Amino acid sequence: MRFTALDHAMMARAIQLAEKGRAVTTPNPFVGCVIVKRGRIIGEGFTRAGGRPHAEADALAKCQESAEGSTVYSTLEPCALHANSRGPACSDLLIAAKVARVVSALHDPFEGVDGKGHDNLVSAGITLDTGLMSMEVECQLKAFLQRVRSGRPYVTLKVAASLDGKTALANGLSQWITSAAARRDVHTMRRDSCAVMTGIGTLLVDDPALTVREVPCERQPLRVLLDSRLDVGDGAKILEGGNTLIVTATGAKTRCDELLDRGIEVIRVPTESVKGKVDLSAMMQALGKRKINALMVETGAKLNGSLLAAGVVDEIVAYIAPSILGDNAKGLFALEPLASLRDKITLSFSDVRQIGPDLRITARIIT
Amino acid sequence: MRFTALDHAMMARAIQLAEKGRAVTTPNPFVGCVIVKRGRIIGEGFTRAGGRPHAEADALAKCQESAEGSTVYSTLEPCALHANSRGPACSDLLIAAKVARVVSALHDPFEGVDGKGHDNLVSAGITLDTGLMSMEVECQLKAFLQRVRSGRPYVTLKVAASLDGKTALANGLSQWITSAAARRDVHTMRRDSCAVMTGIGTLLVDDPALTVREVPCERQPLRVLLDSRLDVGDGAKILEGGNTLIVTATGAKTRCDELLDRGIEVIRVPTESVKGKVDLSAMMQALGKRKINALMVETGAKLNGSLLAAGVVDEIVAYIAPSILGDNAKGLFALEPLASLRDKITLSFSDVRQIGPDLRITARIIT
Repeated sequence: MRFTALDHAMMARAIQLAEKGRAVTTPNPFVGCVIVKRGRIIGEGFTRAGGRPHAEADALAKCQESAEGSTVYSTLEPCALHANSRGPACSDLLIAAKVARVVSALHDPFEGVDGKGHDNLVSAGITLDTGLMSMEVECQLKAFLQRVRSGRPYVTLKVAASLDGKTALANGLSQWITSAAARRDVHTMRRDSCAVMTGIGTLLVDDPALTVREVPCERQPLRVLLDSRLDVGDGAKILEGGNTLIVTATGAKTRCDELLDRGIEVIRVPTESVKGKVDLSAMMQALGKRKINALMVETGAKLNGSLLAAGVVDEIVAYIAPSILGDNAKGLFALEPLASLRDKITLSFSDVRQIGPDLRITARIIT
Repeated sequence: MRFTALDHAMMARAIQLAEKGRAVTTPNPFVGCVIVKRGRIIGEGFTRAGGRPHAEADALAKCQESAEGSTVYSTLEPCALHANSRGPACSDLLIAAKVARVVSALHDPFEGVDGKGHDNLVSAGITLDTGLMSMEVECQLKAFLQRVRSGRPYVTLKVAASLDGKTALANGLSQWITSAAARRDVHTMRRDSCAVMTGIGTLLVDDPALTVREVPCERQPLRVLLDSRLDVGDGAKILEGGNTLIVTATGAKTRCDELLDRGIEVIRVPTESVKGKVDLSAMMQALGKRKINALMVETGAKLNGSLLAAGVVDEIVAYIAPSILGDNAKGLFALEPLASLRDKITLSFSDVRQIGPDLRITARIIT
């Protein structure tokens, strides 16, 4: 199947529309849809906050003329009826509208759809062309796809350091290594995440609020605290205003009940057998069940290192300041000493840009 | 003075021509020159290997018609007759050729010129316009200008590390953290330098040859070894084939004589009073007297840290590999612990690009 220039242009528009739903449709994927007749767009839409209406339903409702005979571009497979459907399925809506052709970028691996939407269209005699600009949409929906495929969120570690990889002086001073511009950019990252996590170690030192404050935000991300023994104090900023989930392992039931009474969500995950610490893979599966797609982690070298060692990190976003702090200063990732360079964690740089005077380096984890 | 679009285009061409002389004209600056008549280039030239002929003489000799009445664009002030002049001065050649106007980018601070070339032209009735694209030429000739202004070379530290700023495992393994593409790029940096320096610590561990091998090279850079006690062994690669300068402080005279007999240049510099180590500022002044403009340093965390602390570094070029080695691995810069973030070394990022899978970050030292 070869796609035309018009096909590419229309899918690119659908991808652009989808962005309007980033983070706010969670846990639903943010999808875009464009409906075209005689080479002209007659309707376009995107998945709305909270996940409904879906992009296709939204675009059909916006059509300025009958969609009969049209071509529909959707960034993800239109949904099929399933156990948890709310309202009619998009594939049924498209059949009822008598569209002639559907072009989608990706198969939707979500178990309620998983090919049934595409099959539904084909059975109704609609021409189906799929796979157009699939790499772009794989990237756009990487967090949703990671959760549906592996059961855990897409995990991004945000770190900030000097050029020599230092996050704080030996005496602990760390405010501020990166610029105000970089810190504002971090708030954009938070806004675009489903949840933002920190660990109790960082909480006891920095007491972060983990809210989005410096950029406009429709919907605050869920705040997640990893606190295996429930050491968090009542005055911690992360508890203010709710919208907080605490992950514990051995925390006392009485303390747990106190937190639940304050409206804080608490989940208990198992400890790993070796060191009696929280089993980070089990924790990520629990957060996946809680339907968190994009999890951003803002924490210290210890938990960052443990998450890397546990193999549950997908991406690192490193803000690098134009400064040098020297070898005595504190480092980025606490890992067991490596015996061989073959044991290193391998990354792939996917983006570098300047944020104020700092650099922001995005790297995907390869191994 | 406002410059025209033609002026800018012609100076840009002169800057481009000058590049052909980078490193090979050392210790002379690499200059470009374009001669224009009736809006057309009638001759162009650049400073040749070894520093002669100068760009203006080269361009005049290349003119396809009389240069009388022409405009001459030169990236640096044309020279005047001085004590060490070899042949006629360029300003005299331009006067003899009866050119109408000279446009230069920069005043030449070299004591034999230092305004006398410009003055000479003006006295002869030639129109002089200077300062065009001066920032570009300041950048191009930064090494020559640094030596003439401060007496020491322009010093660039080349480092290579993982994203978390690590250069080797705790057990010392370091081959290879960066890619073959990055290592080839380092040979380009060497080729473009007047001299490449390392310290005895790095020599004893890695035994580097410090030659340019992986890219074409007209002229090998001088190799400089900082070896305060003359601990270098006779089999060290840096001694093979000569073109080597050793900087010592307390090295024994007999050993010194052995090295001199092998054709190795040895200079002695004072130690600093506090720790009895080589006085790095005095060393840089000595290398300046040796007429080294661009000095590239490839060494370990200790000497890198000492050079930074001594305030004799202008620029850092950091090759960052897409990997993580963890906090136990070895760091980039050995510095005394900082008491306050105000004491950090402040940089400014001037260039970032991808070299194979790695990033190359160039940063200028601000304080």
